[in-house]
Amino acid sequence: MSHNSFGHMFRFTTWGESHGPALGVVIDGCPPNLAISEEIIQRDLDRRRPGQSRYTTQRQEADRVAILSGTFEDERTGGLKTTGTPIALQIQNTDQRSKDYSDIRDKYRPGHADITYQQKYGIRDYRGGGRSSARETAARVAAGAVARLVIPCVKIRASLVQIGSKKIDRNNFDWDEVDNNPFFCADKNAAKNWAPYLDEIRKDGNSIGAIIEVVASCVPPGWGAPVYGKLSADLASAMMSINAVKGVEIGAGFEAAYLSGIENADQMRAGSDGPNRQSAPDFLSNHAGGILGGISNGDEIVVRFAVKPTSSILTQRQTVTTKNQDTDIITKGRHDPCVGIRAVPIGEAMMALVLADHFLRHRGQTGHDGTVG
Amino acid sequence: MSHNSFGHMFRFTTWGESHGPALGVVIDGCPPNLAISEEIIQRDLDRRRPGQSRYTTQRQEADRVAILSGTFEDERTGGLKTTGTPIALQIQNTDQRSKDYSDIRDKYRPGHADITYQQKYGIRDYRGGGRSSARETAARVAAGAVARLVIPCVKIRASLVQIGSKKIDRNNFDWDEVDNNPFFCADKNAAKNWAPYLDEIRKDGNSIGAIIEVVASCVPPGWGAPVYGKLSADLASAMMSINAVKGVEIGAGFEAAYLSGIENADQMRAGSDGPNRQSAPDFLSNHAGGILGGISNGDEIVVRFAVKPTSSILTQRQTVTTKNQDTDIITKGRHDPCVGIRAVPIGEAMMALVLADHFLRHRGQTGHDGTVG
Amino acid sequence: MSHNSFGHMFRFTTWGESHGPALGVVIDGCPPNLAISEEIIQRDLDRRRPGQSRYTTQRQEADRVAILSGTFEDERTGGLKTTGTPIALQIQNTDQRSKDYSDIRDKYRPGHADITYQQKYGIRDYRGGGRSSARETAARVAAGAVARLVIPCVKIRASLVQIGSKKIDRNNFDWDEVDNNPFFCADKNAAKNWAPYLDEIRKDGNSIGAIIEVVASCVPPGWGAPVYGKLSADLASAMMSINAVKGVEIGAGFEAAYLSGIENADQMRAGSDGPNRQSAPDFLSNHAGGILGGISNGDEIVVRFAVKPTSSILTQRQTVTTKNQDTDIITKGRHDPCVGIRAVPIGEAMMALVLADHFLRHRGQTGHDGTVG
Amino acid sequence: MSHNSFGHMFRFTTWGESHGPALGVVIDGCPPNLAISEEIIQRDLDRRRPGQSRYTTQRQEADRVAILSGTFEDERTGGLKTTGTPIALQIQNTDQRSKDYSDIRDKYRPGHADITYQQKYGIRDYRGGGRSSARETAARVAAGAVARLVIPCVKIRASLVQIGSKKIDRNNFDWDEVDNNPFFCADKNAAKNWAPYLDEIRKDGNSIGAIIEVVASCVPPGWGAPVYGKLSADLASAMMSINAVKGVEIGAGFEAAYLSGIENADQMRAGSDGPNRQSAPDFLSNHAGGILGGISNGDEIVVRFAVKPTSSILTQRQTVTTKNQDTDIITKGRHDPCVGIRAVPIGEAMMALVLADHFLRHRGQTGHDGTVG
Repeated sequence: MSHNSFGHMFRFTTWGESHGPALGVVIDGCPPNLAISEEIIQRDLDRRRPGQSRYTTQRQEADRVAILSGTFEDERTGGLKTTGTPIALQIQNTDQRSKDYSDIRDKYRPGHADITYQQKYGIRDYRGGGRSSARETAARVAAGAVARLVIPCVKIRASLVQIGSKKIDRNNFDWDEVDNNPFFCADKNAAKNWAPYLDEIRKDGNSIGAIIEVVASCVPPGWGAPVYGKLSADLASAMMSINAVKGVEIGAGFEAAYLSGIENADQMRAGSDGPNRQSAPDFLSNHAGGILGGISNGDEIVVRFAVKPTSSILTQRQTVTTKNQDTDIITKGRHDPCVGIRAVPIGEAMMALVLADHFLRHRGQTGHDGTVG
Repeated sequence: MSHNSFGHMFRFTTWGESHGPALGVVIDGCPPNLAISEEIIQRDLDRRRPGQSRYTTQRQEADRVAILSGTFEDERTGGLKTTGTPIALQIQNTDQRSKDYSDIRDKYRPGHADITYQQKYGIRDYRGGGRSSARETAARVAAGAVARLVIPCVKIRASLVQIGSKKIDRNNFDWDEVDNNPFFCADKNAAKNWAPYLDEIRKDGNSIGAIIEVVASCVPPGWGAPVYGKLSADLASAMMSINAVKGVEIGAGFEAAYLSGIENADQMRAGSDGPNRQSAPDFLSNHAGGILGGISNGDEIVVRFAVKPTSSILTQRQTVTTKNQDTDIITKGRHDPCVGIRAVPIGEAMMALVLADHFLRHRGQTGHDGTVG
Repeated sequence: MSHNSFGHMFRFTTWGESHGPALGVVIDGCPPNLAISEEIIQRDLDRRRPGQSRYTTQRQEADRVAILSGTFEDERTGGLKTTGTPIALQIQNTDQRSKDYSDIRDKYRPGHADITYQQKYGIRDYRGGGRSSARETAARVAAGAVARLVIPCVKIRASLVQIGSKKIDRNNFDWDEVDNNPFFCADKNAAKNWAPYLDEIRKDGNSIGAIIEVVASCVPPGWGAPVYGKLSADLASAMMSINAVKGVEIGAGFEAAYLSGIENADQMRAGSDGPNRQSAPDFLSNHAGGILGGISNGDEIVVRFAVKPTSSILTQRQTVTTKNQDTDIITKGRHDPCVGIRAVPIGEAMMALVLADHFLRHRGQTGHDGTVG
Repeated sequence: MSHNSFGHMFRFTTWGESHGPALGVVIDGCPPNLAISEEIIQRDLDRRRPGQSRYTTQRQEADRVAILSGTFEDERTGGLKTTGTPIALQIQNTDQRSKDYSDIRDKYRPGHADITYQQKYGIRDYRGGGRSSARETAARVAAGAVARLVIPCVKIRASLVQIGSKKIDRNNFDWDEVDNNPFFCADKNAAKNWAPYLDEIRKDGNSIGAIIEVVASCVPPGWGAPVYGKLSADLASAMMSINAVKGVEIGAGFEAAYLSGIENADQMRAGSDGPNRQSAPDFLSNHAGGILGGISNGDEIVVRFAVKPTSSILTQRQTVTTKNQDTDIITKGRHDPCVGIRAVPIGEAMMALVLADHFLRHRGQTGHDGTVG
């Protein structure tokens, strides 16, 4: 019942505060004999890393990952392989500015977890938000990179699809564009328009919300464990656990409320045998987002989540002191004008972590890989 | 890692199929010495019971609950009290019509879990949807009634707030109206308009989606366990585990994507000492939905979830046989034109179950009740 | 974190009190498509059933098991198969004598859990020991019968090897004798001598302790999950959770304390390829009891556990009232003079339950069955 | 379902191999506001540290612990306090000799986990035993030091009570002697005799088994969670998870098999109100080892466990190669002639870890501390 762990068969536990010496993750239950390297993990971490554009926090962190356990030299290749024992990954914090924290020590930032950590524990590490800081997500992304190795056939991609009221045009959707702009946006035109919009918000000492879409392709049918371990329930929990997320939906999502049964239910035609052990039909639409009854149906898994605007802003807001007295606050420091941007690789990581866990659970219970065979 | 269990300290496990002899739930970890009775549980079950209006399935089930363990006579009052041992609750299935199931045995209903259960397990109880039937939710509601006893100070209410594109008018919102109409709707005018609308849909052999809002009042600050046991993450998982749910949001939810940081972050003013051990501030708005950083802040917990339209409809749809051949299907039988209606008491139950669990977890870790004193 | 559950992938939860209406178990995570029947389960239950000889309690319980969920008709055979959903098993209590419980209501039996349930919960069902009664073990044995279906290649047997100071003669050990005497004893001569010895103890209003040995053959190498999910650790927990058990040992067990490294370490010779995927060596001895580093090595798994004498005896003992006043007690009623006897099928069940769980865990993590390849 | 985690409310996860760069533990669920320091943890680690006498391995490890997260400065005292977030502890490995590992790479040591890790995972870090090395226990001892802070009223002590066939004399038992000899032995005379005995064994290239007794005093009644979370079951699992342990017993343990009900059941007399919330009786004996029905009764918790002799010995033994061919092996290197010695502080740590977890579980479910009240 660990509060800071996620998953069951593929289970990870994160630790660390924003301004502590380091942060990390321990992955337990990883299958043995997977080729692994710090480089593979670093690649995913680098996408989440701050300070890469003017649209994210200017904190400079190398975010270099070190593998401390759970791997061993593959005598044949000279590379590393997983051994089935716990994989400990660690990242040093290097840019913890020694600065005056008295403002956030004595006042609660509106919209921030400062106050609730204090309410719950009666103590908090206020420096940079402590444990509630989005720096924790570096550990998830590192774990997610390992999760991808467990399900190599599955392709996981994500795109920012909305900033404020500005949505992408689905007609322009092109996965190949995602890494060509600072917004991880699959619509290059939208990305172009977002740049000046976000510049404006940043200059105003304000911030803005966003929506991210994560898609997993080539997921075999049969993953997911009804009724409380539904694939959809675990994805909802996974995405909602990301800092600042306030909503999660699968497939048609909230739009499904507007639809009739005739419109919503995805009709089927006989499918040719796919890459999976069971012939899956062709679905004529995907309002289900690839999940029926909490179990994958072989179609693309589609998840969207909404990220609220950064609460640490340069505009003066009403708040209270830790002594429960009225005051005002302006939050200085290095903050993302739109935390939704860096949430894109984080969403991919959480998708990978949920799917890797469910793959192992499915294989355990049924003896089937759900893969070629 | 039970697939059919939910919760940690207050943990329940459900079992049973739609057309099996019975269904039930085992609750483990319930505090001792709570006054309990079958009547208290029945009251909640009766709200979820089918066949109470023409807007829900006409299946007739008394849904009488029996307490089989975990309670003992209170010598003082003559009533029952919980003993701290597992509480087993059971409901007989009485209206399993002996009928011809060949249609759903040989064909998959579009939008239904028929196909994914078969894909996952290679076998399924096709009668009435078997384990994937919404009859499972009776067990949750029974468990939820017990959960409410654990947190008597917390008030949990829910309302249907949208059917299809027809939303309630927030100006008419009145909790007292919820039980005055067959839709559990807090806006009596909306309820009036929904009646003919839903009659139409039913007559068309169609169905429609809906949105439910669940609100918990008087939740003390401090409940929730970051970072993967966030109150918000567990609520998302809880609601998404309900049959037909495709989206969950907290507070401003997806609307938060549209908001700026200035608009979204809930400002604070010094609060008078509340009913809780720690003085909580007054929040000037509640975009957070009562949760910051995954921990309750003392304000109302607000959760909404979207329910897709019933997939079993009387209109002919394209599908495949279990032998992977093209065919069509019309799903006869007794189905809800809008499963969202009966999802209202189910949503309340899941809220109660999540909160009871987090109350015990919080008390275990910190030694504080988070309640008076 | 369910208190009344055991296992992870193959997980079961028991409920029920000695004098409640029924008791039962819910099994979650069982693989689908296993042939199952009430008869298969009943066979194991009948071995544990009370009242079968004068050496066990005279309580008369038919202990008829009913399968309430998780199975479906196999169209080919007409028999039942598991579906992968929760299997609920239930047993009615039929011989709860309506009698005067005032003695054990007002006084604590020495050596019994009466007092600790009261200390923990502040309330207890004192009738027949309530939840702490050995009747709970019926539910385990039922679950164990299902567990055996998961690992059909593994053979699990047990024998009573000691009553009081009277041990079996290892030279007479013959598994085929176990069901030929009322003690489940593999040494028929010992069984003959135990009969008058136990008669004497019973007539004296006394009781006696015992040791049970459980052996699992044909367990493939590789089951077990270091370091806190060691096969040995889970077996220790499983056996220690049985009523009245005070000690557990694996292989040489406590005898290993007396041995030197030269004597203890099991030497190896090259083995012929066995029934398992990996060639296992031949071990020249089995002090390890088939487990090294918490993982099965392919040799027989050997576990022994010690059962204390029944605490409910007809001899007057010093105790206190529930008001903390000195008094004496003689416990009347129908009690086993040696609870160790009926612990034999219970020990087998717990072995099956641990192994089934570890089989699924191993298969999940590694993708290998550890069975015929 | 983490394989390398233990506990529920107070849950820890260890990682690291014998010859990797470091090892560590993450503790989750620790209550906030406990005064903590690296020194407090170091004190326990130093007792387990190798190389302190000629009776333990000569490997030189400083075993310096670093706290990486989960604590924050207490403004009042200037010391550290726990914050309720995960506590990461880490120890660098410093004395991994660069040596030739070809012998244990190519041959399996009899009695060692070398072969089973290979059988399970198909790969292993053979250097110093990798994950199966007793170096893992440093992480447990560090975690145990934190666990002690959670239950400050409970006193946990342990003593070596037997080496080979040489037992202590109970008449000489004096807890104050434990740290006065290199064996952690409460009988100073026994310790004196063990010294030349163990010298002999070491010179012979042999090793020897041992028995450790761990006692927890001042444990309030009511801790433990029947029926599968019994305090006794969790202690059995905890002790059996320690490297080389082959048997665990509580109170009278295996001796209970020899006893009659009259002898075994601990009689009671009315007790004066103790330090606990519920008046506990005085028990006239403690065959129960402080646990009845899996719940603490207020008396001393007494656990013993048997440790097998070190399998890595300097005497030639028959074994097989990793290619399944007959060979012989002599295991050189720095090994403990009696691993039972260093198991003493490890046993204390596991006792503390189990009790801290059950304290929090009990407090969560019942709202009672079980402490002064």
